[in-house]
Amino acid sequence: MSKGFMLVCDGSNGAGKTTVIQGIADYLEQQGYDVVLTREPGGTPIGEKVRSVILDPSTPEMGSMTELMLFGAARAQHVEEKIRPALEAGKVVISDRFDAATFSFQHYARGIDLETITTINELALGGFKPDMNLILDLDPQLGLQRVSQRGEGLDRLEDEKMEFLHRAREGYLAQAKADPARFCVIDASQDKQSVLSDCLKVVDALIATNRNRKND
Amino acid sequence: MSKGFMLVCDGSNGAGKTTVIQGIADYLEQQGYDVVLTREPGGTPIGEKVRSVILDPSTPEMGSMTELMLFGAARAQHVEEKIRPALEAGKVVISDRFDAATFSFQHYARGIDLETITTINELALGGFKPDMNLILDLDPQLGLQRVSQRGEGLDRLEDEKMEFLHRAREGYLAQAKADPARFCVIDASQDKQSVLSDCLKVVDALIATNRNRKND
Ligand SMILES: Nc1ncnc2c1ncn2[C@@H]1O[C@H](COP(=O)(O)OP(=O)(O)OP(=O)(O)O)[C@@H](O)[C@H]1O
Ligand SMILES: Nc1ncnc2c1ncn2[C@@H]1O[C@H](COP(=O)(O)OP(=O)(O)OP(=O)(O)O)[C@@H](O)[C@H]1O
Ligand SMILES: [Mg+2]
Ligand SMILES: [Mg+2]
Repeated sequence: MSKGFMLVCDGSNGAGKTTVIQGIADYLEQQGYDVVLTREPGGTPIGEKVRSVILDPSTPEMGSMTELMLFGAARAQHVEEKIRPALEAGKVVISDRFDAATFSFQHYARGIDLETITTINELALGGFKPDMNLILDLDPQLGLQRVSQRGEGLDRLEDEKMEFLHRAREGYLAQAKADPARFCVIDASQDKQSVLSDCLKVVDALIATNRNRKND
Repeated sequence: MSKGFMLVCDGSNGAGKTTVIQGIADYLEQQGYDVVLTREPGGTPIGEKVRSVILDPSTPEMGSMTELMLFGAARAQHVEEKIRPALEAGKVVISDRFDAATFSFQHYARGIDLETITTINELALGGFKPDMNLILDLDPQLGLQRVSQRGEGLDRLEDEKMEFLHRAREGYLAQAKADPARFCVIDASQDKQSVLSDCLKVVDALIATNRNRKND
């Protein structure tokens, strides 16, 4: 059976990840791909329970190591139970956030040392890596405006200081710079159609690469 | 302010941990100690939420790495939020299970490699170690009989195969052998009063050590 590929949409809060993912999924499904939409933290019944522990605004006392390990736990389950089996079955997996978010938020923004983050992430991923991370890049101030216009309350993580969100943004850009083969930065300040169109160019390239890989 | 000490009651399921802890706490309180009773996984509001995810019988699909990281998350929060502050305030902390259980169940019984367990445990503990682990040692078959006489259903972890519980028991004994200064094996097949009395001898020794430490 042919192996699928995995795409991640990541980036600042409110940058438009969830919105653009729907457009990408539609595009792929029109071409006959079997698309699995998922998200982090979450993606599995266990992961979604862990997600609600992580995001619960009633527990601001959560320590940074606790948070990191909860993300790791949800990710380990996500990879093992959902992502690997879907890829083995030839499906395309699109995840709303993935491991790049841990580096950006827990390391660059929260300040946990890189070695600890890398250790937990490697244990959670068990050697797995997504094929492509689309980083929707946006000024965090604009992102929060978009979120507030969406009209929901802020969860524990969105309720962080602006300074924190700026550092997370720098974290995404640094990762993209360090690994251009697996990261692509998208200007998310554009209108929805232009953001989607930029993303689809990357998706087309990924499809081509995957086709060549299968023909090898 | 004088520093307290931490005692762990650990061992096979149904060995009598929760029962004997109450007796130890009464004994210490009669001597004027301020005793904090706690348990793992759990011990904090966040940890108790994680506990219910770990023990939920409706999710048998939980992977071993997921489980390990959930234990780690709960432990990190436990040490930071509850144990260290209590010890700093001169209290005595008694925990129903702690890190020895992770080595016994996840490494010896479940088979996760020792290095991974050690890595997660060290990150969760952040250099902290309990002063004494009382290991209530009992044939797992007898432990399960005691639990079933207690009349509750089995949770996801108690519902494991007998073989698994035997390996966990060996794990506790191996740890006690490797670190006799911090572990003491108690014969839990005795009647309740004898089990308590054996434990209190260790507690007395611990109090004496702690008094000397403070006088240094
Ligand atoms: N390119 C865009 N221009 C303007 N508004 C946008 C754009 N993309 C999305 N939005 C709107 O901004 C809001 C946030 O978008 P969306 O929920 O997709 O972002 P997100 O990155 O998934 O947010 P979160 O980080 O909270 O999950 C929505 O109301 C959405 O309709
Ligand atoms: N020494 C003993 N002899 C006989 N029965 C005992 C003894 N100690 C405890 N019990 C009984 O065995 C049952 C299990 O005891 P307890 O709940 O203290 O064990 P536990 O180790 O905390 O179990 P668990 O692993 O489920 O938390 C209880 O009904 C308790 O009254
Ligand atoms: Mg979203
Ligand atoms: Mg008990």
